Amino acid sequence: MPDSIQPTLSADPREARRAIRAGRHTGTTANVAPGYVQGNLAILPADWAAEFLRFCQLNPKPCPIIGLSEPGDPRLPNLGADLDIRTDVPSYRVFRDGALIQEVTDITHLWRGDFVAFVLGCSFSFESALLDAGVPLRHIERGDSVPMYLTNIPTAPAGRFAGDLVVSMRPFSPANAIRAVQITSRFPNVHGAPVHIGLPHLIGIDDIDTPWEGPATEVRADELPVFWACGVTPQAAIRRAKPPIAITHNPGHMVITDLRNAAIAAL
Amino acid sequence: MPDSIQPTLSADPREARRAIRAGRHTGTTANVAPGYVQGNLAILPADWAAEFLRFCQLNPKPCPIIGLSEPGDPRLPNLGADLDIRTDVPSYRVFRDGALIQEVTDITHLWRGDFVAFVLGCSFSFESALLDAGVPLRHIERGDSVPMYLTNIPTAPAGRFAGDLVVSMRPFSPANAIRAVQITSRFPNVHGAPVHIGLPHLIGIDDIDTPWEGPATEVRADELPVFWACGVTPQAAIRRAKPPIAITHNPGHMVITDLRNAAIAAL
Repeated sequence: MPDSIQPTLSADPREARRAIRAGRHTGTTANVAPGYVQGNLAILPADWAAEFLRFCQLNPKPCPIIGLSEPGDPRLPNLGADLDIRTDVPSYRVFRDGALIQEVTDITHLWRGDFVAFVLGCSFSFESALLDAGVPLRHIERGDSVPMYLTNIPTAPAGRFAGDLVVSMRPFSPANAIRAVQITSRFPNVHGAPVHIGLPHLIGIDDIDTPWEGPATEVRADELPVFWACGVTPQAAIRRAKPPIAITHNPGHMVITDLRNAAIAAL
Repeated sequence: MPDSIQPTLSADPREARRAIRAGRHTGTTANVAPGYVQGNLAILPADWAAEFLRFCQLNPKPCPIIGLSEPGDPRLPNLGADLDIRTDVPSYRVFRDGALIQEVTDITHLWRGDFVAFVLGCSFSFESALLDAGVPLRHIERGDSVPMYLTNIPTAPAGRFAGDLVVSMRPFSPANAIRAVQITSRFPNVHGAPVHIGLPHLIGIDDIDTPWEGPATEVRADELPVFWACGVTPQAAIRRAKPPIAITHNPGHMVITDLRNAAIAAL
């Protein structure tokens, strides 16, 4: 295992959340609580949350909702009995008027009585299914996070939320690309099947070596780049909608839930 | 509809077989009895049939067995109560010592007491499912048969049967290529998911404009060629194995069965 992959923090999602809550883990959640669903996070004031909910429902591939809090309530008991969304994510991003102003490890001091938390399915679940099937993932072998790109594929707008789709990219041999379509199709709640394969310039990606977020991953001459809708899409929409405050996860630093990946497979 | 597409002979598979048996239809079976499974045919003497059965079982993607006759019996009642394999295919190919020597519309005069007939699933079933889902197929729009290529992908040999895989090719937009993987994965008995996508030189296809069988189909700059294992693969194996006699269908001129396409879907 490369040095850059963090050692497994904990096989148990409750223990992992306790460690994060106590400030003992501030890194990415790759390899943490393997087999359990992790999620993307978006927190918005209630007067923005209704529009964002509609944005998610209109754009289920990038924004599959797996958890939604009551306004002002930091708990998401359906995802974890003890889960406190103010403390249980290793790294948060704070946006003010659409601008990323801070990355923090705890948002208790920022929490408001009108905040609504959205937890959206994340590709870690389908990556786990790919690895279980023997389909290799280069960015994981290298201990990197996945490269993400802003495409020219418009999302369906909802009120003030709009903008283009963000995608993640994984390179595969053609046979493994076919297998990856089959495997990820079983997981519609964590982005499901790819949105594109093979011809990135058609979706507005002119330079595969320059991701919008994350490090580049080599695509070899005998491979095809395969693209999935990404849960970072809301961050692009938030940058554009400019709510006075919004809080998200820092990419790769996810919400760890008690749901099992195998339990959310459609087939 | 282009002139070159034959008008629908019959919506009913029994009527279609009666018309073929009576010599009233000798063309391809595209558009005949839509919704019903059609099959590839290979007939071999009993002393070659056991090896060919093992070849099919070792190579289920090109050779999915949907019907197998008793030696000497030209009936396949599981595929159609009245089906007579000597008369019910519009065009047969006769191979002697591996060489194609004749194309005929009836093989009654050639039938022997030791002949075994194999019927193998055919891509018409999954093409029907693709069209039902709104995924266009250019060769059908043009009234052409599908282009087929001999690859460098070896089949698993069984006795005297061996050789490389024959594939069919259909061009798709990247989004439709992904949808085509999903849809055809539901039909493992008619070749199932593609075997290759996007980089034909990797499977030994250097000139996409020169198929091994069938007319070329344009692949546009914004499309990917997608390749499926093809039921013509046994004809390549027969050419190589050189049995004293073997009879197959003429590509596109298939065995029409009473099985519904929807009934053979795995999901």
